[in-house]
Amino acid sequence: MKSVIIISGGMDSTTLLYYLVKSLKAEVKALSFNYGQRHKKELEYAKKVCNKLGVPHKIINLSNIQELISNSALTGDIEVPNGHYEDKTMKLTVVPNRNMIMLSIAIGYAENLKYDCVAIANHAGDHAIYPDCREEFISSLNTSSILGTYNKIKIFAPFTQLTKGQIAFIGSKLGIDYDKETWSCYRGGATHCGKCGTCIERLEALETAKTIKELPKNLGIVL
Amino acid sequence: MKSVIIISGGMDSTTLLYYLVKSLKAEVKALSFNYGQRHKKELEYAKKVCNKLGVPHKIINLSNIQELISNSALTGDIEVPNGHYEDKTMKLTVVPNRNMIMLSIAIGYAENLKYDCVAIANHAGDHAIYPDCREEFISSLNTSSILGTYNKIKIFAPFTQLTKGQIAFIGSKLGIDYDKETWSCYRGGATHCGKCGTCIERLEALETAKTIKELPKNLGIVL
Repeated sequence: MKSVIIISGGMDSTTLLYYLVKSLKAEVKALSFNYGQRHKKELEYAKKVCNKLGVPHKIINLSNIQELISNSALTGDIEVPNGHYEDKTMKLTVVPNRNMIMLSIAIGYAENLKYDCVAIANHAGDHAIYPDCREEFISSLNTSSILGTYNKIKIFAPFTQLTKGQIAFIGSKLGIDYDKETWSCYRGGATHCGKCGTCIERLEALETAKTIKELPKNLGIVL
Repeated sequence: MKSVIIISGGMDSTTLLYYLVKSLKAEVKALSFNYGQRHKKELEYAKKVCNKLGVPHKIINLSNIQELISNSALTGDIEVPNGHYEDKTMKLTVVPNRNMIMLSIAIGYAENLKYDCVAIANHAGDHAIYPDCREEFISSLNTSSILGTYNKIKIFAPFTQLTKGQIAFIGSKLGIDYDKETWSCYRGGATHCGKCGTCIERLEALETAKTIKELPKNLGIVL
């Protein structure tokens, strides 16, 4: 398996990188995107973990398109809200069409490399507010990608049905030190704020992971 | 109708711009992309025609992703081939996943503006070598876009079934002066080379247009 991975430097995509390299023994190249997010700090974490695993990594600067999609608390002048992902205020953190933009570039790169697929770590916990993380979106874009490329590039999204707790469980099995190797907080300060949506999800996931003994087989994860 | 249009400065997208503004009376904002193409000259034509029609226009610089998709005669170090679009050599002019990349950014912009759709001027003559110009690709990406956005942004591609000759016929009805208002040549020299794929198509289309009296009604074009 030869895959381009989209890695943010957060828990989910870092776990996916480990999964591709350690469990699936895939040949991987990684892309991160600087789209003007406040929490650019995550990109340093992405770079570090790719170096550790020997995966070539590029950070793509999308500052030129930032003004087009600036109507979000992650990129614009709007305050990052506190609260849970399911809360209505979290809709402020939706970056218009972010996943399609990142995926389309990664698909172009995979096509250029004659690779098989593009890997993305969307998961069940994102579905409530991020329409471009849902299974039907990923499935439809997978069809578009196969139709639009000569190498029939697929989208590999093995965490689509998983909770973040289950992802953290995978990470614990693969030896990830989430404190040292990943960054989540949307505010991007010196330490995790503990109050924004992604901080709350992170803490909950790390707690939940401790209670999991194994994953249901139908999720298709082979460690 | 409120639409973001992707305009290259060539015949097809310029005709679509005229069609949206003059025939459909749409509210339009235009995007052009500098993806490292040799024929950047087309972008000046796009700017000029948008100014003429009073349409706000932005040129988005994608030079940061150029290295990822550089395996094409339009962006890399490969020579632009002579010949017809149907020829095998023309495959060298395919830019990996270009349409999905441009559309995804335009969809993000339309979502941000709370517009209805994104307009693109793919047409029947492109289908032979550009997989991301075909109806099934556009139709699939339309589904992805509706699923991935809160405003259910659609892709408006009214020329998908049309030949370039039929597009040139529409342009003649709408008063476009193709010589002065559009640029096609992939080589981007002082004048059109007359020998590359897009030059040949352009000349053929302008000749064919003269022989057309009206368009078949089932194409859905209302001038």
